[in-house]
Amino acid sequence: MLESFRAIVPAGGAGTRLWPLSRAGSPKFLHDLTGTGRTLLQATVDRLEPLTGPGGVVVVTGERHAAAVAAQLDLPGPAILTEPSPRDSMAAIGLAAAVLAEREGDVVVGSFAADHVISGAGFAEAVAQAVAAARAGYVTTVGIRASGPSTAFGYVRSGAPLGVAGAPDARHVAGFTEKPDAETAAAYLATGEYSWNAGMFVARAEVLLGHLARLHPALHDGLRTIAAAWDTDARGAVLERVWPGLVRIAIDHAIAEPVAAEGGVAVVPASFTWDDVGDFASLATLLPEAPGGARVLGDADRVLTLDAPGATVVPGGERLVAVLGIPDAVVVETPDALLVTTRDRAQDVKAVVDAVRERLPDLL
Amino acid sequence: MLESFRAIVPAGGAGTRLWPLSRAGSPKFLHDLTGTGRTLLQATVDRLEPLTGPGGVVVVTGERHAAAVAAQLDLPGPAILTEPSPRDSMAAIGLAAAVLAEREGDVVVGSFAADHVISGAGFAEAVAQAVAAARAGYVTTVGIRASGPSTAFGYVRSGAPLGVAGAPDARHVAGFTEKPDAETAAAYLATGEYSWNAGMFVARAEVLLGHLARLHPALHDGLRTIAAAWDTDARGAVLERVWPGLVRIAIDHAIAEPVAAEGGVAVVPASFTWDDVGDFASLATLLPEAPGGARVLGDADRVLTLDAPGATVVPGGERLVAVLGIPDAVVVETPDALLVTTRDRAQDVKAVVDAVRERLPDLL
Repeated sequence: MLESFRAIVPAGGAGTRLWPLSRAGSPKFLHDLTGTGRTLLQATVDRLEPLTGPGGVVVVTGERHAAAVAAQLDLPGPAILTEPSPRDSMAAIGLAAAVLAEREGDVVVGSFAADHVISGAGFAEAVAQAVAAARAGYVTTVGIRASGPSTAFGYVRSGAPLGVAGAPDARHVAGFTEKPDAETAAAYLATGEYSWNAGMFVARAEVLLGHLARLHPALHDGLRTIAAAWDTDARGAVLERVWPGLVRIAIDHAIAEPVAAEGGVAVVPASFTWDDVGDFASLATLLPEAPGGARVLGDADRVLTLDAPGATVVPGGERLVAVLGIPDAVVVETPDALLVTTRDRAQDVKAVVDAVRERLPDLL
Repeated sequence: MLESFRAIVPAGGAGTRLWPLSRAGSPKFLHDLTGTGRTLLQATVDRLEPLTGPGGVVVVTGERHAAAVAAQLDLPGPAILTEPSPRDSMAAIGLAAAVLAEREGDVVVGSFAADHVISGAGFAEAVAQAVAAARAGYVTTVGIRASGPSTAFGYVRSGAPLGVAGAPDARHVAGFTEKPDAETAAAYLATGEYSWNAGMFVARAEVLLGHLARLHPALHDGLRTIAAAWDTDARGAVLERVWPGLVRIAIDHAIAEPVAAEGGVAVVPASFTWDDVGDFASLATLLPEAPGGARVLGDADRVLTLDAPGATVVPGGERLVAVLGIPDAVVVETPDALLVTTRDRAQDVKAVVDAVRERLPDLL
């Protein structure tokens, strides 16, 4: 457990590349995508609670998912913050930071997405170092050692050692990058300076809110106003008045990038296994290999593959799924939709969703 | 209508290459595989009744399918002959020929599979010529003009013109061949002498039974014994005693090939469209093309294809089927099984069925 550390879990955003498994009404964080028996949201909280201690995790979600989030988690009511409408990650994380500052003063807060998959050792140690760097005043991120030149992730470039006690591996951040092309990604890795940006940000609440006050004062003031009213009878009225006017911006653009340029961001390199499960190709790598080389999310006894190594199957549970002669096939069954594609087209599932939106919007 | 002509429709044999659509308990002849609203069996009878006149079609099927056959057809009870167990095509066709000879004397009989698809003009004219040749004493087949060097069908080689009145296109048969390899098939077509063997055989009942008496006397005698008892109270007892001992042999090997070698077989070339719907690649060509190039058996509104020209989909009807980036994909949904493959692996569906037989025999 880390002293005065609180975790913020933004749980929003349906995404479209895991359709038909992930839906607008049932986004991926509500699903067990790894066959462990825990949903991504539950696993995220499971991972953080030992670090914050009981009651130290706050989830920020939308009205549409608040009931499902509450049903999946054994958290007290005040630990679930419900946004009236999506306002991107800066508003969500800033709201939680402001509410926590209001409730508990200048604690260290860390934000961790609800829909990422983490395994292997090293997470707790990396967060501990990030918290130490945060106490020294830095906005600190965790940089994941790249297992290959992925074009699906942004990268963080590390600079000189930070030299903060309790954070021996921490370095200054030289900058953040958008998702690169393959050649650029390979060049990044060759330098040894780049790691994957997992979107984890750890900072003292007042440091985070101070940067926000300086860089986006209207957003800061709005969030502080809401936070002051949050645990009072005025919450609803204030939310109704203030929330709709908040600017939509990602925390990366609002704080991480500009503050990094000023030298105020640190990175703790880490080598645990991390994935944002952005599409079915990514999902496939997270699943155990069944006989015949298939990857099955669900009951492997309901799947039969022949000459289809790497086939990734999500059986609906009611019928046998047989795949013949399509290596790396992706077959996803749900009660109202069946998707058949291959891993190398995993990113293009978005196009299927666009077509579904036009023809059968009920299936989104 | 052709004078004294009776049609025999053997309706048996599940096949395995249309699994999971065609099952042991529900073989393909019971299915509407072309989206016309009529099953293959119904379409076969629809096509033959105008040639035989009312009551002129006899269906031979197994006990397991007798009820389904009766339910699909508007035929009198005696027109459905039920075999106690499968004894291959010679026993089935021979039984029907013997029963018809018993009931009606030396009529001309023609056998036509229950699970082939025929379209276009020319069928009635070809059968009329075959009947004329049959009256002259020949076992007569209909040879389908090959639309390409198929390796999925056997071929019939035609010789000199037959010179029989009423059968101006008929020729002697020089021989039958097994399914050839692609090179051999191409060589066949180059000669202009070969056509596809559609397994249609037309002959006078007494000519057919005479050949059988000569070539397979035990089988002939057994069938005659059963036929004599068929329309009597003794049918059950005689079947029980005689049927299990009948030799299993195809009519091709029992009669067509040896009699052709003796000069007793004729062929009427025909150019209607014919297919035995042997696998999903074959089925695909029989279905109309939906927008995007898909072939759909069922509700095309429940199918969405992207970058999947030639995709062949049999939706189960309850959900949307989306296929992305797999040209010539084959996706077949049934309540208890889903098959995903491609047209070029259509013949290998047999291997899937073998694996299913081992693991989940209830799904056969």
